[in-house]
Amino acid sequence: MGTSPDFTATPESPLRVAVAGASGYAGGEILRLLLGHPAYQEGSLVIGALTAGGNAGATLREFHPHLLPLADRVLGATDIDTLLGHDVVFLGLPHGHSAVIAEQLPETTVVIDCGADFRLENAADWQRWYGSDHAGTWPYGMPELPGKRDALVGATRIAVPGCYPTSASLALAPAVAAGIVEPVVNIVAVSGTSGAGKSPKVDLLGSEVMGSVRAYGVGGAHRHTPEIKQNLSALAGTDVKVSFTPVLAPMPRGILATCTAPTTVTVAEARAVYEKAYADEPFVQLLPEGALPATGAVVGSNAVQIAVTVDADAGLLVVVAAIDNLTKGTAGAAVQSMNLALGLPETAGLSTVGVAP
Amino acid sequence: MGTSPDFTATPESPLRVAVAGASGYAGGEILRLLLGHPAYQEGSLVIGALTAGGNAGATLREFHPHLLPLADRVLGATDIDTLLGHDVVFLGLPHGHSAVIAEQLPETTVVIDCGADFRLENAADWQRWYGSDHAGTWPYGMPELPGKRDALVGATRIAVPGCYPTSASLALAPAVAAGIVEPVVNIVAVSGTSGAGKSPKVDLLGSEVMGSVRAYGVGGAHRHTPEIKQNLSALAGTDVKVSFTPVLAPMPRGILATCTAPTTVTVAEARAVYEKAYADEPFVQLLPEGALPATGAVVGSNAVQIAVTVDADAGLLVVVAAIDNLTKGTAGAAVQSMNLALGLPETAGLSTVGVAP
Amino acid sequence: MGTSPDFTATPESPLRVAVAGASGYAGGEILRLLLGHPAYQEGSLVIGALTAGGNAGATLREFHPHLLPLADRVLGATDIDTLLGHDVVFLGLPHGHSAVIAEQLPETTVVIDCGADFRLENAADWQRWYGSDHAGTWPYGMPELPGKRDALVGATRIAVPGCYPTSASLALAPAVAAGIVEPVVNIVAVSGTSGAGKSPKVDLLGSEVMGSVRAYGVGGAHRHTPEIKQNLSALAGTDVKVSFTPVLAPMPRGILATCTAPTTVTVAEARAVYEKAYADEPFVQLLPEGALPATGAVVGSNAVQIAVTVDADAGLLVVVAAIDNLTKGTAGAAVQSMNLALGLPETAGLSTVGVAP
Amino acid sequence: MGTSPDFTATPESPLRVAVAGASGYAGGEILRLLLGHPAYQEGSLVIGALTAGGNAGATLREFHPHLLPLADRVLGATDIDTLLGHDVVFLGLPHGHSAVIAEQLPETTVVIDCGADFRLENAADWQRWYGSDHAGTWPYGMPELPGKRDALVGATRIAVPGCYPTSASLALAPAVAAGIVEPVVNIVAVSGTSGAGKSPKVDLLGSEVMGSVRAYGVGGAHRHTPEIKQNLSALAGTDVKVSFTPVLAPMPRGILATCTAPTTVTVAEARAVYEKAYADEPFVQLLPEGALPATGAVVGSNAVQIAVTVDADAGLLVVVAAIDNLTKGTAGAAVQSMNLALGLPETAGLSTVGVAP
Repeated sequence: MGTSPDFTATPESPLRVAVAGASGYAGGEILRLLLGHPAYQEGSLVIGALTAGGNAGATLREFHPHLLPLADRVLGATDIDTLLGHDVVFLGLPHGHSAVIAEQLPETTVVIDCGADFRLENAADWQRWYGSDHAGTWPYGMPELPGKRDALVGATRIAVPGCYPTSASLALAPAVAAGIVEPVVNIVAVSGTSGAGKSPKVDLLGSEVMGSVRAYGVGGAHRHTPEIKQNLSALAGTDVKVSFTPVLAPMPRGILATCTAPTTVTVAEARAVYEKAYADEPFVQLLPEGALPATGAVVGSNAVQIAVTVDADAGLLVVVAAIDNLTKGTAGAAVQSMNLALGLPETAGLSTVGVAP
Repeated sequence: MGTSPDFTATPESPLRVAVAGASGYAGGEILRLLLGHPAYQEGSLVIGALTAGGNAGATLREFHPHLLPLADRVLGATDIDTLLGHDVVFLGLPHGHSAVIAEQLPETTVVIDCGADFRLENAADWQRWYGSDHAGTWPYGMPELPGKRDALVGATRIAVPGCYPTSASLALAPAVAAGIVEPVVNIVAVSGTSGAGKSPKVDLLGSEVMGSVRAYGVGGAHRHTPEIKQNLSALAGTDVKVSFTPVLAPMPRGILATCTAPTTVTVAEARAVYEKAYADEPFVQLLPEGALPATGAVVGSNAVQIAVTVDADAGLLVVVAAIDNLTKGTAGAAVQSMNLALGLPETAGLSTVGVAP
Repeated sequence: MGTSPDFTATPESPLRVAVAGASGYAGGEILRLLLGHPAYQEGSLVIGALTAGGNAGATLREFHPHLLPLADRVLGATDIDTLLGHDVVFLGLPHGHSAVIAEQLPETTVVIDCGADFRLENAADWQRWYGSDHAGTWPYGMPELPGKRDALVGATRIAVPGCYPTSASLALAPAVAAGIVEPVVNIVAVSGTSGAGKSPKVDLLGSEVMGSVRAYGVGGAHRHTPEIKQNLSALAGTDVKVSFTPVLAPMPRGILATCTAPTTVTVAEARAVYEKAYADEPFVQLLPEGALPATGAVVGSNAVQIAVTVDADAGLLVVVAAIDNLTKGTAGAAVQSMNLALGLPETAGLSTVGVAP
Repeated sequence: MGTSPDFTATPESPLRVAVAGASGYAGGEILRLLLGHPAYQEGSLVIGALTAGGNAGATLREFHPHLLPLADRVLGATDIDTLLGHDVVFLGLPHGHSAVIAEQLPETTVVIDCGADFRLENAADWQRWYGSDHAGTWPYGMPELPGKRDALVGATRIAVPGCYPTSASLALAPAVAAGIVEPVVNIVAVSGTSGAGKSPKVDLLGSEVMGSVRAYGVGGAHRHTPEIKQNLSALAGTDVKVSFTPVLAPMPRGILATCTAPTTVTVAEARAVYEKAYADEPFVQLLPEGALPATGAVVGSNAVQIAVTVDADAGLLVVVAAIDNLTKGTAGAAVQSMNLALGLPETAGLSTVGVAP
């Protein structure tokens, strides 16, 4: 795996960025963020190839009418010919497709994969949950976890975390790392529908999802479970038992993760642990006591809003975290990772300001 | 406390029913169900006084334009003069108001309270959670719990359960009663907004709730916690630790409760326990393996849809239950209780058919 | 076309009803209404074959988990063998499919088509809007229009009106028939998403429709335009110019039609016309002055709520009508028509009570 | 009325901006846009006093948890002492309150009123629609209308247009100005709920608005009617008859205006008129033929997406326009006007990129 070359892009010699899977939700959100990135606005970053599988040949307007400056861009095929010649390639593809593209791209190209292919470290885990051979493991695009930021600086292959693991890991990491909870965590995470992607399915129709919430992947069956477990176990230095239930709610964006773990500390002690862990993190905000996060407050933003409390009767730490699944949960983490890889300011093009109401 | 007189109402001598708090959501839903009740349609049940606090003098149309047959009815004051002379009085009032009305009504009047006043058995619990003197305990309108149905037959004072306790208790009761789980339960329940009532508050405005989910009452702070604990501890014969987190979702109706508890049984064993417990229950449906409940499927219905599984990795029983918070969670339970109290068929006027999509 | 035989169904010799297209929204709503129909509850109507095209072999639960009493029913193929032997056959099929089935069914079978095939009287209109040969015209299932009710009594072939034409025609019929407006009408009708059906399409995904409204079929391009024109022109005795724009809103059910037409009458005169026209209609309610309809008040109900006013500055009659597109707009009209065809009470199994909030 | 002083703000001598009514939706959106404004990010614009009526003393977090960088700011009182000493003062106040504040501020302070007080030119109109004395008329913050942009350059008093008039005027202005339609227009505009403000009212509760659409202000009763008429009549050079019906839809943001007017031109002729009118407008986008706007594509953006077509059967021009009522409909127009007043680039801090899905 290579190291990214010195980034001294200028309007005269701009950085070229491609997005594979541009017609999907992850691709669209990456483009939304790039359009607002200062490097793009100065001209030192240009948006090159936009590709899509079955949708090649169509204009971007058909899929993302909200991206007006790119509306007339024609989508290319997701193949190596189209993607070569870029400095950065974002991949927003179904799992199993990224490895094929990545191995054909030069080692010096910064490849940022929003899919699952390179997230899991354990080949047996991959085999169990995805039923295919393990492609490998790339630096993990969650700089807020201990040790992860450094590995992203100069990286040319980056695995963007899953949206649920982002909310759950950031909610629980400080407590698990500090050893103030037993290694037994319970997570119920309520998500908007965009996390399920843009493939048309009956159970994702507006008529079906509006006015209804439903759980899925119940009983530890969701593929994000091993990723959460991997993150927390590494911090705990021991195997962490993870119960994870995803719930689908009638809204396009957002994840609210309610996380509990047995504890004996007081709320003040717990909050002190979190304050210390996230003191310098630009995107993680520990809410003041009494305040609770809402996903509506982080729509379109890269912020993670976290409330920490203790249920003394039940003997549990209770942490609630809100993110935008498409921004901090996917495309925001991808751009944050790109910034780190290229030596740009980590927060460039990302905001802690949501669009509300 | 009295016993209800023989119920031999006929169109010539119909049962007179009043609803106090008719302008609220609980009151409106009771009226919706009564309008479809066979006794009403035959003329052997008449809808008498409809009362409201600050809204007395207005027509029902202003509050419930969906109740067309009663739209021109004028709301009376919520006082004893208006409510006397009825055979059944439903109370849909803020907590603390029901006792005052109830003690002025004859012992033979069937009084069905949708508020919290008479749910908790332990006076200290009441004092802790509501900060006032305990008014007493009435027969509990959840006939599906062991022993509760018999107490409702002929009762003239009935406490309708809270909406969250309905979903959580019915989800966990069989497992707790059978001793197949440890007495440590975790509940995250996602609710529609009607559970928060109809008083205008900024954080319940459509602009605030649409596109957003948020937790509240986090850390064991919600007043439904002791009611859940009371129900489960009675079944367990020991103190059950309860962690309960309510989450508000952008939909008017519905509760989806995700409940976990440590277990060592297999999914087949767990399902057998539930099948036995609910075999004869008209409103509780255990879903076939693989099916998961959605709140959208129980809108307007008195059904409880339950999925039971086991997360073997985490060592947990996972039960997901869906109800309509206004129907089975409030007004449906109230009508079901009325039917039992009066010797009517328990399911009269209630349906397991939802309005979807 | 035949006449339905005397209907003297009893539990001993019940009426057999089939639903073709049972996995779709129209089919599901017909079944929801039948489950609540007094004839079904008494046992004098039984629900026979439920069929579906590509979904044959699956259980109804997969498509309509809200129809618990029928959840385990297996869907049959939509063919003549499956549908023969029923007294009533409801068709909820894509247009073009109904004629094929209908011509194979005996003339004495009551066939009620929820599709468009038999709505238009003019063969050239059909050809223009649907691009195929005209199958014919059946009695039109909108008994509230002058002359239509009588034609439905004893009918064995019935064309259920389109959902938009139901809202617009009932909103404008009295004014057009009474000649108090010029024959130039403007209709903007906002609909829930279930009107677009259950076929999975990207632009109907929850992620796409929530938080967004959009117009479609703009410029007179929607196929319901000629049906509206046909209804109104017949009443006017002259060609009525119709401007119709459908708008999709983020809700599953409901149509709100805002209709205008030039007038010189006063609001009192206009209201008198509507009061007279709808005085005896069980499902049409003219709202008192100042009240305005909301679709939320008619969800699941067969009611049409109508507000009539005059914009004196603009010289226009303004009529706003709300219906549930699946009930009065489709399945409710179908059951209402069945009742008339069979000599049952017209309102049997139908309600003016909505499910709200 | 003064002229704004030369704007040569720098980080050493930054522009000071205050927002009165900061706890409301207009105020919050102004702050969201200012936080992304390049002048703010460079430090040459600072956000000074934030005031609120009854909410003074609270932190901004309580009202706008999405504005993280300002979350701990304490709201001041909306009075002259708090607002003095700023270069720009945005007013997001109920109508009738702006004049009182404005007359106490120096003539050189740029005062930008998001309320209605200074929009109407005709005192009799004001008296009729608002029932009080006319406060005057300020330059109108819709630079896309002929002649309006120039009046905003250097202005120190600016009236921000209403949200409905923005959508309807921009939809119809080119056609009316070019004389290709008769001066008789019909507008049905579907709006999100934030346009109704943040005061808690029962009929704006989430439970009431979700799953329902309803019309209001029917029959020409909405106060935005005279503003639309004023805009269009000025362009037509004659009195334009305006029929305007607002419809409330279950979404927080967005307006979709469907506008019709009699025409004899072809769609090509109509489109040519619009292409010419809006060729140089940075925020107005005429969609290609066949594309139709959705409000979801302009959420958070200052764009106006417009589709123009002709219904030849009905003899009507049909124009559909989508805006975000809080951005282009209020706060975006306010910032756009500020930019013009101060000699900043008109588009600074504003985007044509929406947040979708």
